[in-house]
Amino acid sequence: MNDTNAHDTVRSVLWRGDRLRLLDQRKLPFAEDYLDCTTPEEVAQAIRDLVVRGAPAIGIAAAWGVVLAARRGRNAIDSALPLLRAARPTAVNLMWALDRMQRAAATDADPQALEAEAQRIQDEDLAANRHMGALGAGLLGENVGVLTHCNTGSLATAGYGTALGVIRAGVSSGAITRVFAGETRPWLQGARLTMWELGHDAIAATLVSDSAAAHLMKSGQVQWVVVGADRIAANGDVANKIGTYQLAIVARHHGVKFMVVAPASTVDMATASGADIEIEMRDPHELLSHAGQRTVVEGAVAWNPVFDVTPAGLIDAIVTERGVIEHPDGNSMRALFA
Amino acid sequence: MNDTNAHDTVRSVLWRGDRLRLLDQRKLPFAEDYLDCTTPEEVAQAIRDLVVRGAPAIGIAAAWGVVLAARRGRNAIDSALPLLRAARPTAVNLMWALDRMQRAAATDADPQALEAEAQRIQDEDLAANRHMGALGAGLLGENVGVLTHCNTGSLATAGYGTALGVIRAGVSSGAITRVFAGETRPWLQGARLTMWELGHDAIAATLVSDSAAAHLMKSGQVQWVVVGADRIAANGDVANKIGTYQLAIVARHHGVKFMVVAPASTVDMATASGADIEIEMRDPHELLSHAGQRTVVEGAVAWNPVFDVTPAGLIDAIVTERGVIEHPDGNSMRALFA
Repeated sequence: MNDTNAHDTVRSVLWRGDRLRLLDQRKLPFAEDYLDCTTPEEVAQAIRDLVVRGAPAIGIAAAWGVVLAARRGRNAIDSALPLLRAARPTAVNLMWALDRMQRAAATDADPQALEAEAQRIQDEDLAANRHMGALGAGLLGENVGVLTHCNTGSLATAGYGTALGVIRAGVSSGAITRVFAGETRPWLQGARLTMWELGHDAIAATLVSDSAAAHLMKSGQVQWVVVGADRIAANGDVANKIGTYQLAIVARHHGVKFMVVAPASTVDMATASGADIEIEMRDPHELLSHAGQRTVVEGAVAWNPVFDVTPAGLIDAIVTERGVIEHPDGNSMRALFA
Repeated sequence: MNDTNAHDTVRSVLWRGDRLRLLDQRKLPFAEDYLDCTTPEEVAQAIRDLVVRGAPAIGIAAAWGVVLAARRGRNAIDSALPLLRAARPTAVNLMWALDRMQRAAATDADPQALEAEAQRIQDEDLAANRHMGALGAGLLGENVGVLTHCNTGSLATAGYGTALGVIRAGVSSGAITRVFAGETRPWLQGARLTMWELGHDAIAATLVSDSAAAHLMKSGQVQWVVVGADRIAANGDVANKIGTYQLAIVARHHGVKFMVVAPASTVDMATASGADIEIEMRDPHELLSHAGQRTVVEGAVAWNPVFDVTPAGLIDAIVTERGVIEHPDGNSMRALFA
């Protein structure tokens, strides 16, 4: 087993021939429970409920949902597609994977053909992540501290990860000597999932509150912020987990570089700019409680957008498996993705 | 009862003649338990454990701790002073209140004389807050949305509050039409305490994650960030709850104004700049657990600075009971506080 494989043993989306097995990310890091889905309705529910989350992983799970539908016949595919499409609004990988499965079904709706297509989507995502890891790590420089946000690792993808793939590659090459993870309220993806994944790989990392990022940058311990994306618009604007935009502003203020790592399936050239991206609003109770316990007085109101948009002008590099775009704008995006 | 009194019914620090009664802020908003302290040691422990928190309230509690010592004799005062002084390092109000009690004791160490001095400290803080509320509200403009951080209300002071006093006054005058509270990880003072206080006063408020501040500002719903302070240096740099610095950066990025509200007891002209302020580091378990329940994988490391420094250049106004300093710097600070 080589080093790269050692960094890649967690799998969150597992096809089991007749069912889709999902690592239940709501219960991590203390229980490694799996949820089996045998229908596209169950897959859509699992996406809505955050059993599976992370833009690429959502797309892959949805593709397998189409395979489950195909086992019930051609009509079941047609009814499953809009259901899966509506499960979450912001990550475009979901729409991309479903478009791809729909095209495949138009050619051959046989479950085995669609199974092969879903497997290709999953395999290509893993390969893209490994390639992006190498590309992104090459940008970092030496003796670098990085701060990441949310979870963009094996749990959020087919494996290895996007931003966390760059961190894995950078730690492996020696470029990265300090890793910080923001806890990522309200769902604590950073605290619960990223710290668990990094611990699993024996990568030393330090958890910080989302509010401590500016103070951390001022201390000189961080040279790069490295994050994933849920949708990248045609002008290079990036929708990602709430708090990403704030990190980009404070990074620029401190001269800290800002890298977005996402597969080409995250790029949505049909969306002109970030202003056109639907930002998912989730249940205020995600903020009114913490780790399952209510923390705020009864009757309190909360505003819970779970994504935000970072304008291209605050981004130093977008890393995809097709290549790196430094200082992204409409022209450089078109050159790679038109 | 006039409107101002209606906004001022919570008391967190209560002198009961022979003991100090503290509203236990660790248990809010779900239990209104009180802790009685009969010794300065118990008061110091309550300050360390965050039973009482908020820079002015810490100072007031410590002053009553000296009264409790005085009841045991002159020597007890001398041993209580360093103990209380060491309870928390960042808020200078603690040192200020103890200096004042020490001077009073040098003149007359009689418990009744010291009781009168502690009561003056407490009464003056309440009067300062009401005055600052009016001064700060006068700066706001019309139909304003405000975002505040941590808790700076009656719980954190002798009553009414500093930043929350400005919000109370601004809501009362009609200047403020939207109030947002950041939840303030890790201790959730905004979620637990500010939302409870505002609910108590029937002031409509919306809770947001600390990470959502930039997205909120971009939405145009906020025109001012209004926060308190734990220490203000001679050059106008402000130490306050972790996350304040980040808010100041993103406020400036969006053209949102930034106001610091604190009594003169928070100003430390002996500290040249923010770089000279000791930033308290607290137990990493504040980030690794919640309400005794672990949220992060065993073995994980966290970095938990609980204050940060906002440079004067990012501050539009410092409001104290002595007056308002717009665009603070060393000269304007000296003019008011030398």
